[in-house]
Amino acid sequence: MRTPSNVTAKAFADAVGEFQAAVGADWVFTQDTDVDLYKDAYSLFWEEPGELVASAAVAPSSTEEVQKIVRICNERSIPLYPISTGRNLGYGGSAPVYSGSVVLDLKRMDKVLEVDERNASALVEPGVSYFDMYRHLQNIGSKLWIDVPDPGWGSLVGNALDFGGGYTTARYRNHFEAHCGMEVVMADGELLRTGMGGLPGSKTWQQYRYGFGPNLDGLFKQSSLGVVTKMGFWLFPQPEAYLNASVHMARYDDLVPLLDRFGEMENANIFNGMPGLSSPVLMQGGRAAIDFPEIPEGAEMDRMARESGLPCWSGRLTFYGPENVIRAQWDYVKSRFPEATFTENAFVKLPLSPDDMERIHKPSFGIPGLEMFAMGARNKANMDPTDGHFWFSPIIPRTAEGFLEANRVIRQTCKKLDIPVILFSPPVSSWYRAFILVMAIPIHKDKEKNAHLRAAVKELIRICADHGWGEYRTASAFQDAVMDTYSFNNHKLRRVNEAIKDALDPNGILSAGRYGIWPKHLREKKA
Amino acid sequence: MRTPSNVTAKAFADAVGEFQAAVGADWVFTQDTDVDLYKDAYSLFWEEPGELVASAAVAPSSTEEVQKIVRICNERSIPLYPISTGRNLGYGGSAPVYSGSVVLDLKRMDKVLEVDERNASALVEPGVSYFDMYRHLQNIGSKLWIDVPDPGWGSLVGNALDFGGGYTTARYRNHFEAHCGMEVVMADGELLRTGMGGLPGSKTWQQYRYGFGPNLDGLFKQSSLGVVTKMGFWLFPQPEAYLNASVHMARYDDLVPLLDRFGEMENANIFNGMPGLSSPVLMQGGRAAIDFPEIPEGAEMDRMARESGLPCWSGRLTFYGPENVIRAQWDYVKSRFPEATFTENAFVKLPLSPDDMERIHKPSFGIPGLEMFAMGARNKANMDPTDGHFWFSPIIPRTAEGFLEANRVIRQTCKKLDIPVILFSPPVSSWYRAFILVMAIPIHKDKEKNAHLRAAVKELIRICADHGWGEYRTASAFQDAVMDTYSFNNHKLRRVNEAIKDALDPNGILSAGRYGIWPKHLREKKA
Repeated sequence: MRTPSNVTAKAFADAVGEFQAAVGADWVFTQDTDVDLYKDAYSLFWEEPGELVASAAVAPSSTEEVQKIVRICNERSIPLYPISTGRNLGYGGSAPVYSGSVVLDLKRMDKVLEVDERNASALVEPGVSYFDMYRHLQNIGSKLWIDVPDPGWGSLVGNALDFGGGYTTARYRNHFEAHCGMEVVMADGELLRTGMGGLPGSKTWQQYRYGFGPNLDGLFKQSSLGVVTKMGFWLFPQPEAYLNASVHMARYDDLVPLLDRFGEMENANIFNGMPGLSSPVLMQGGRAAIDFPEIPEGAEMDRMARESGLPCWSGRLTFYGPENVIRAQWDYVKSRFPEATFTENAFVKLPLSPDDMERIHKPSFGIPGLEMFAMGARNKANMDPTDGHFWFSPIIPRTAEGFLEANRVIRQTCKKLDIPVILFSPPVSSWYRAFILVMAIPIHKDKEKNAHLRAAVKELIRICADHGWGEYRTASAFQDAVMDTYSFNNHKLRRVNEAIKDALDPNGILSAGRYGIWPKHLREKKA
Repeated sequence: MRTPSNVTAKAFADAVGEFQAAVGADWVFTQDTDVDLYKDAYSLFWEEPGELVASAAVAPSSTEEVQKIVRICNERSIPLYPISTGRNLGYGGSAPVYSGSVVLDLKRMDKVLEVDERNASALVEPGVSYFDMYRHLQNIGSKLWIDVPDPGWGSLVGNALDFGGGYTTARYRNHFEAHCGMEVVMADGELLRTGMGGLPGSKTWQQYRYGFGPNLDGLFKQSSLGVVTKMGFWLFPQPEAYLNASVHMARYDDLVPLLDRFGEMENANIFNGMPGLSSPVLMQGGRAAIDFPEIPEGAEMDRMARESGLPCWSGRLTFYGPENVIRAQWDYVKSRFPEATFTENAFVKLPLSPDDMERIHKPSFGIPGLEMFAMGARNKANMDPTDGHFWFSPIIPRTAEGFLEANRVIRQTCKKLDIPVILFSPPVSSWYRAFILVMAIPIHKDKEKNAHLRAAVKELIRICADHGWGEYRTASAFQDAVMDTYSFNNHKLRRVNEAIKDALDPNGILSAGRYGIWPKHLREKKA
């Protein structure tokens, strides 16, 4: 049995005994063969000393059991790392950021506690996956959609807390912003309810999320301050129809008005689906739509467009709503682009027919799947399958100039630093107003390559920061490096986070190191 | 010169001298005649010992000066109460919650630092009022709207931090949620920037507000944790047209489908303006639309409706957008109410003509005003003008049952407790999913009446809490009482807030007592 550092073997053995008493011996794991399952399947430290490993894992079935475990750990300063379904692949998986922590595996807490059809909301436990939730809604005959991220096996709670995004309308595809109310086990084992949940017997816990006084919910985003055991979500009433249509613009310079008008119309509520961008002239030859190519100089791109007859840019919009409304919205969009051509890519009436199911992009319809994992798999085009990947995802301005610069600088930097890329997304609009660039960087079980990657990506992070681009989320291996770039006023952001961490978790037991926030004793050790 | 308690006259005089050195002697106020101007004009403690008074006021003109003042106070544990434009009337005005605090008056910091027309956003200082911002946008020929609350003299920053709301589309009328990025002077005098502002040279401070790791912005809502010196806001691109239209439903029981379908359609993005409710049958005789009457039993109301030929309920919707789109949205709404009748109350093409300006509800078009103050003024119907009012504003469920119950219980309770009401709003949808009931309770310069009111409203707060309704905001006199109702798990919400307060402001200098959060030394004094 492994033992967390700073904890005596005796104290840890006592704790394990108490874990067993709290949750039953079947749900406490201390054998290496079991515990190793919590390693990050996409680790950047494969078989190296830096590999993040758990010392044990414990899987409670209720909030009360979570409280017991947290108290046991708090008494002995045992580090604890909560995971929901543990599927955060590409961003750290189920491995603790601080190696040696006990993994608190919440996947058994998988109850959908409530679906309120009239308020279009749900209250769920952290072990509820998108698949679970989808099945539940189908079983009860609900007309509500969840917004799903690419892999459907993740947890609604975990994905929202990690700030994941999906594909439907803006209010729902920002998963954290679509939440309403939390119950949290704090480091002292006590229960906090946020928003209107603070009022016993509240009738609006899943209806009004701001509460009275400071709103604490943001503290639990990408954080180490508590274990969320219940979380409310707002759901999307199934629309009557869906339209996917594109605006095609001929010339390189047209990207400026294309993105500006899309932005203006989204800000004015004229469409609600997630906009997308592609470049037909650059994507000849069946290149995957999610893998955006390098962008040549304007004159060159214009020449290619003239020769091929293909447009330089295609902006895609999706509309959800009554047929008459979404057709009016699309008509209006067309009227704003007198210089463009248009295609209607898909029109679907809901509910979906079996035929529809075959041809649609399922996540755009709130249907969970695992298709995304085909990305790194062995296929005709890729006979060298990866052993995983991690995501690199800077926030960039939502302008043509911003995207073109980021595409150029990041592409060139990856070449210079020898960072391979298996997916370089078009600019992604998971949230209003800003783009994310999402790159998948492949991992292989090769120590030398991994050591190179770790150093190179840290350099990439610094170069992006020099250009004013910061990551919104990152794998455990880079959380310190990214937090380092948020350095305004001698890292005041981190120092305020540390002060809050020390106040709410004085023994530093919860998720030490997550997103670059370390508890006091480990900061001192590092210093 | 008054002196804050716990501070020696010498220490305070030294501090005043340093204030003068920091901001210039003209901007430090210590004479009672000056300082008394910061009393709450709508005080519930008129000429009583409980009256909240400042010991001095200081008005800096820059962030650097704010930092100096905060440091001067922090060194000597002098309580400081920041206000923006100080217009929070009905919710505490410009008076410090902890009597004897120095008011930090930010109204001189009135620069619009940036308007980004392409991103439809602005960065402003706390002294910028809605009037200032409106004029600025007009002057630069901007096509962007601000969303304004009823009184236009308030501060964008102050109103958002107090969780004020407006009238345009849902994304903008929640003023706190429409913010993007803050700069905050913390109690130690150091500057924090939230969101992407943590990254020096960030290109997306006003575009992506969530940042990396925990999102701290909610901590500064209705709070005592920092002095916000810059705040970004998302603005609403001027729509092409506006439609205000109503659905009329004949019978008492029709309120259920009326509100349910409105909720479903708002959740499905089918309209974006603020929905409203009135009752033609109950509002005969020119009763003000904002003052909702008592609601009789269903059979009685149905009888009144039959006899008068008026509908029991009218649901009002507003639509902002291209004419073809908003007409399609309204057509769809009508198709969802086969049993209803309809009226189009107003259709306006933007920009507004001078004629339009005469007939419209200005805040619905992002135009600030002060018309709301007519409410308590002397007029034909009210020959006994008030000396002010305060707001009582519980969050209630967004259902017919929820509204009918709250209307009945709160009306009866006010009668029983002899609480006068000059305005009892229809259910207000400033935010998604929940209703607020907003009541204005008049104040007179009468000690006996005020003592009665203070006790009676505390009882009303408790009765509402027993029904599961909590206030979202309240006047200083009731902030402790309301926070007391958020008592889940022995007031864990307050205790967590207190732990954060003690960690970030260990000397307890900032806005002590605001929203029921007191610093350690004052908690101990009270206990």
